[in-house]
Amino acid sequence: MEFSESEVIAELSKIFSRHDPRVLVGIGDDAAVFTSPLQKSVITTDMAVEGVHFRREWSTPDEIGQKITAANLADVYAMGATPEHLVVAISLTGHESMVWIKELARGIEMEARSCDVLVIGGDIVRGPVITISMTAIGQIDEPILRSGAHVGDKLVITNLPGWSAAGLYLLQHKINVSAISPARCVERALAQFRAPSVSYPAAISLRGAHAMCDVSDGLLIQAGAMATKTKFVIKSDLLRLHPDFADLTGLAAQVGADVWDWIAAGGEDHAFLAAGIDLPGFEIGEVVQGTGVELQGVEKTPKGFTHFI
Amino acid sequence: MEFSESEVIAELSKIFSRHDPRVLVGIGDDAAVFTSPLQKSVITTDMAVEGVHFRREWSTPDEIGQKITAANLADVYAMGATPEHLVVAISLTGHESMVWIKELARGIEMEARSCDVLVIGGDIVRGPVITISMTAIGQIDEPILRSGAHVGDKLVITNLPGWSAAGLYLLQHKINVSAISPARCVERALAQFRAPSVSYPAAISLRGAHAMCDVSDGLLIQAGAMATKTKFVIKSDLLRLHPDFADLTGLAAQVGADVWDWIAAGGEDHAFLAAGIDLPGFEIGEVVQGTGVELQGVEKTPKGFTHFI
Repeated sequence: MEFSESEVIAELSKIFSRHDPRVLVGIGDDAAVFTSPLQKSVITTDMAVEGVHFRREWSTPDEIGQKITAANLADVYAMGATPEHLVVAISLTGHESMVWIKELARGIEMEARSCDVLVIGGDIVRGPVITISMTAIGQIDEPILRSGAHVGDKLVITNLPGWSAAGLYLLQHKINVSAISPARCVERALAQFRAPSVSYPAAISLRGAHAMCDVSDGLLIQAGAMATKTKFVIKSDLLRLHPDFADLTGLAAQVGADVWDWIAAGGEDHAFLAAGIDLPGFEIGEVVQGTGVELQGVEKTPKGFTHFI
Repeated sequence: MEFSESEVIAELSKIFSRHDPRVLVGIGDDAAVFTSPLQKSVITTDMAVEGVHFRREWSTPDEIGQKITAANLADVYAMGATPEHLVVAISLTGHESMVWIKELARGIEMEARSCDVLVIGGDIVRGPVITISMTAIGQIDEPILRSGAHVGDKLVITNLPGWSAAGLYLLQHKINVSAISPARCVERALAQFRAPSVSYPAAISLRGAHAMCDVSDGLLIQAGAMATKTKFVIKSDLLRLHPDFADLTGLAAQVGADVWDWIAAGGEDHAFLAAGIDLPGFEIGEVVQGTGVELQGVEKTPKGFTHFI
C-alpha cells in the first residue's frame, strides 16, 4: 500500500466531515463524544467479510458500503429507534487503491446521510481480507421487541422479500440475464442484492406495532425468532397478492428457481415484519396461540442460505 | 464447525448474562437498549485481526479477549469517561472449538467486569481469519481531549511503557527466556504483551488533566498526536528515574534490544499520558510553546512497529 494509516484517516475524515451539534468530539481523539438527550440509547453491530458477505467482483465499493450501512441502520429502525451515529472499523489487505477505499466510505456516508446519521469514529487495521464492522447508535423512546406480539395481531411486512436473494441467485449461477424479460426485474434483483433500498420511513410508520423485526436473515427464520410466545401464521395466499409477487415469480420461473426459497428463506432484503393492530404495511398473516411459525399453502420447505456454517 | 451460529450465541449469552438495571434490552433482539442518563455519551471502536494483532500460538483465548477489551476500554477512560457497555463482532473460521470461543468470551467478560462494563450485543460471522471488532460506549461529563494541553503543563504518565513491546520482542525473536534474570522481568513482559494490566483507576485520577491520551501506539507517536497546538518535551532523565526503568533496561540489555525503542516507540501498553498542573502520576516532561514532540537525551530515534504498513 502506498499510503499510511494516517493518510487514509485524513481522506476518510473529509468524506465524513458533516458538522452537527449532536457531535461534541468527532473523528481523531481516543473516542467520539455525542449528545444523548433521550436518556435511552440503542446500539447494534454488524460485521461483513469479503467473500462471505460481499465480493468485489459483484459489487462496487460504494454499493458494499451502502449495503453494510443499510443492514446496520435497519436494525436500529427495527427496534422503533432512530439511528444517529455510526462507528466503522475496517481491515484492509494493503492492495486496495485509495480510490476504492474512498468510494467505500462514500457509500457508507451516502446511506448514513439518507437517515441523517453521522460517522463519528472508526479504526483502520491491516488484515488478510477486507472486513468491515459497523456499530450504530441511536436514541429511543419505547423499544419494540421481537417478542411483543399478541394473539389476534395481524402480521404486516413493508415490502416483499426475495429480491436480494434473486440477485444473489443470478450472480451465483452466472445467469445470462440478457435473455430474461422484463429487464427491469433483473435490474431490481441485482440492485437490491448489491445495495438494498431500505424503506426506513416504512419502519417509522410501524412504531405502533407490538413487535417488529428486520427480516434480513430470511422471513421464516426471522418470524420464528419473533414467535417465541405466540404462533405466527404466514399465508402464502396473502403473499401472492403482493403487487411484486408476479414479477418475482416470473423471474424465478425463467431461471429455474423456486420463488418461495427467495421470499420465505432469502436474506438481506431488510423488509420490516411487524405484528399489531391497524398497522400500515402489507398484511401477510396473523398471530395465534402457540409458538413457532407456519407458512400456509407452500408444500416444500423453503430453503435459504446461511452465512455461518 | 460442529455447531451453529445460534448455538454459539446461546453459549456466549450465558457468559455475558449479568443483569443490570442499565440494560433495558440485552442480547437477542435487533439491537440492545440501555440507559444514558448523563446526556453525553462516548463511543470508540477497535478491530483486531489474527496474525496481525494477536496469534493463537502466543496467547490463550482468554488473554486475547482480555487484551482487546482492555484496549477498547482504555480509550474510553482516556477521554475522561466511564465505559458502561460493549458490543462485540467476531468472525470465526469454523475451525475453532466451542471451548476456545467460550474462553475468548470469558476473557472479554473478565476485563469488562473489572470496569463494571456489560457486553450487551454482538455479531458472529464466518471469515477466513479470526477478526474481533469491539465498540465501547460510555457516559461522560466533560471530555478530556488530546489537544487540550497548555504551555507550562507538566506531562505525567501512569506507568512506564515498554513492557508489552518487550514481551512481543521476546516472542518474535524466540528468545530463550530461561537464561534471563531476573525471571520476574520476563514474566512481566510476556504478561503485559498477552493481556495488559491497565490501570483504569489511574486514568480516573487524571480527570483534572487538560489533555489525556491512551499511549497504545507508542509514547512518541501518541505524544505527537497530542502536541498539535503546543510542544511536548519528554525528558529521558525523568524516565530513567521511573522505578521500573532499571528492570526494563536490564531485560533489554540481555536480549540485545534498545530499551528506548520499547519505551518511546513500543505499543499496546495502555499507559495514560496526561498534561496538566498538580496531576498524580509520574512526571516525564513539560509542555512548551511550539508544536511536535521532542525526546531529550536520547541520541538515536527510537523505532517501533506499526500494524498498518
